[in-house]
Amino acid sequence: IGPCDYQTSHRTVQLPGLINIAAFVPGLVSAGSSDLQTVTKASIAAGFSMIRVMPLGREGSITDAITLKIAQQNTKREGYCDYNFSVTATSTNANQISHVAGEVGSLFIPFNHLSDNISRVAAVEAHFDAWPTHKPIITDARTADLASILLLASLHNRRIHVTAVTTKDDIKLIALGKAKGLKVTCDVSVFSLYLSQRDYPGCQFLPTAEDQAALWEHMETIDVFSIGSLPYQLAHFLEKPTDVAVGISDVLPLFLTSVAEGKLTLEDIKLRLHEKPMEIFELHEQVGTALEVEIDRPYTVPATKFWSPFAGKTMRGAVQRVTFKGHVVCLDGALLATPPKGTDMSTHNALPAAAAMS
Amino acid sequence: IGPCDYQTSHRTVQLPGLINIAAFVPGLVSAGSSDLQTVTKASIAAGFSMIRVMPLGREGSITDAITLKIAQQNTKREGYCDYNFSVTATSTNANQISHVAGEVGSLFIPFNHLSDNISRVAAVEAHFDAWPTHKPIITDARTADLASILLLASLHNRRIHVTAVTTKDDIKLIALGKAKGLKVTCDVSVFSLYLSQRDYPGCQFLPTAEDQAALWEHMETIDVFSIGSLPYQLAHFLEKPTDVAVGISDVLPLFLTSVAEGKLTLEDIKLRLHEKPMEIFELHEQVGTALEVEIDRPYTVPATKFWSPFAGKTMRGAVQRVTFKGHVVCLDGALLATPPKGTDMSTHNALPAAAAMS
Ligand SMILES: [Zn+2]
Ligand SMILES: [Zn+2]
Ligand SMILES: [Zn+2]
Ligand SMILES: [Zn+2]
Ligand SMILES: [Zn+2]
Ligand SMILES: [Zn+2]
Ligand SMILES: [Zn+2]
Ligand SMILES: [Zn+2]
Repeated sequence: IGPCDYQTSHRTVQLPGLINIAAFVPGLVSAGSSDLQTVTKASIAAGFSMIRVMPLGREGSITDAITLKIAQQNTKREGYCDYNFSVTATSTNANQISHVAGEVGSLFIPFNHLSDNISRVAAVEAHFDAWPTHKPIITDARTADLASILLLASLHNRRIHVTAVTTKDDIKLIALGKAKGLKVTCDVSVFSLYLSQRDYPGCQFLPTAEDQAALWEHMETIDVFSIGSLPYQLAHFLEKPTDVAVGISDVLPLFLTSVAEGKLTLEDIKLRLHEKPMEIFELHEQVGTALEVEIDRPYTVPATKFWSPFAGKTMRGAVQRVTFKGHVVCLDGALLATPPKGTDMSTHNALPAAAAMS
Repeated sequence: IGPCDYQTSHRTVQLPGLINIAAFVPGLVSAGSSDLQTVTKASIAAGFSMIRVMPLGREGSITDAITLKIAQQNTKREGYCDYNFSVTATSTNANQISHVAGEVGSLFIPFNHLSDNISRVAAVEAHFDAWPTHKPIITDARTADLASILLLASLHNRRIHVTAVTTKDDIKLIALGKAKGLKVTCDVSVFSLYLSQRDYPGCQFLPTAEDQAALWEHMETIDVFSIGSLPYQLAHFLEKPTDVAVGISDVLPLFLTSVAEGKLTLEDIKLRLHEKPMEIFELHEQVGTALEVEIDRPYTVPATKFWSPFAGKTMRGAVQRVTFKGHVVCLDGALLATPPKGTDMSTHNALPAAAAMS
């Protein structure tokens, strides 16, 4: 009983393997956690052949060689798509991050979780100085903090990626920075584009309706679409039954529906879920990896045991087939009985990228 | 009974007329106020031949053509030294400031007094775009707000002057900005260099002892010494009898004492109270204006009806003679019976400077 039972006019389109640059894996550094496997499994079924694991805050994040080792050991329970780790800045680990720089894909500076007791600017400055100049830096800084970190990036002539932009002011500041030559890129959470505080009053981590309109208006400023922790936060806020994979399967149907409605193009999706993520995070093309998606065939999102804010809504696009490293691993949303083939791609790119950048 | 009654070894030194780039004149835009006359009178007696009037916050400041007119009318009660007005940015006057730009010396952005209801960054951005590119902009922004405004200045390639820097973090950020080529200058209030929260516990607007040490360590980063509203705030905090002239007469004795003690040079003083203020705020040399000061003769600051935090302390320098526009107007701290000769120098420089900058 696949989506193809509906006999309406529709078209099939090829897409490259998608990249989620902000995957939420809370058990990342908990010994024995299967969160990474759960998330990679949902990801590959939804068309994501690569995830970059991004911590929500300081908890559950790689901050030194010990937590990195735990995360690496958790990958013995193998992943279903490729993955890529980041090290997280804390107020005190600036002189340790260089030791793990060779084994992770980027440095994440969770600005809002840095201790207030010491100067945030001083802490960020120390990390800028300790982190290899060619490797990406990501931050979740907001408003005045965003301005602070953009200033430091500007003064150090460094690239910086701002994750999960939610507000009109922040997207405008980033647009201004780009217009003035700052090396800043950003992503917006998919849920922020499709859900707002008008849908869920009191839900502060969603954009207001006005903010959401500003995000859409600044589509040219948005480099990447991400998933992030927003779906999980929303489920938690609403006290809905959920797991760490929440939201992942909603992404492509939402975007393909916008394509069917003329609000986005397939190029917009390819650019922001494949090309720009590869470019910004210096990832390699995944050989033998591609998707086939269907557009223009309406269907209703089914209610399952795990909550989705879109259950019961009509979508006009779906993932039909996922090929990963030369094998079909997924058909019409169902994972085939193939062994997991994901590998740790954190370090893969470090040296060639360094050479290419310098 | 002048200072020369003490017969100890001392030397007399010539200085140019000093400039207070941040004079506190609370009644500036109150009809009929004599505050400007009071402050200019105390200023000329203390060796300051030019003051730039800087509002404490939004109150008592020039924000449009109407308040500018009141300030100009208050100068009919003439000033004893030259003076220079600024227009103050508010959340809503960005499109009005260009109308008064030709009649004031600079734009002051009191970052901490901008309404929180709208984006501060957006408000500041609007002012940057509305203010003539060659004219100075001053701000009192702190910490993350300071970073925000430095970013905007950097993105717009504009000069910015930060007034009354108080903390280690802020002076370090400015030092970093300067090192990286940002067009930023700053001043530190004289009281912040000589008084700290160790002297007055709980007095949040004074630096901590550690902050104060950092300010002295970053002397090369400090472009200008200012007076500002700190003396008035301190008197108010301690509930001491005071008037708007509080602190002005303490400045030169404090600095000359530091010269006598080898902590500063006369060049440090000339640079930060005359040359840099002229350069940053595009002021003209005041013809026939100079001071004669004495160094190395100890005397005790007398207690007067107006409180000074330095009453009873031993100083090793004093103003002996002030010549203003070719006339001796002050001898041994006492104003001679000459009519006030100060004029409004706000607009004087606007056009020639514009031509020189472009
Ligand atoms: Zn079909
Ligand atoms: Zn640095
Ligand atoms: Zn590709
Ligand atoms: Zn490679
Ligand atoms: Zn003498
Ligand atoms: Zn602008
Ligand atoms: Zn001079
Ligand atoms: Zn002139």
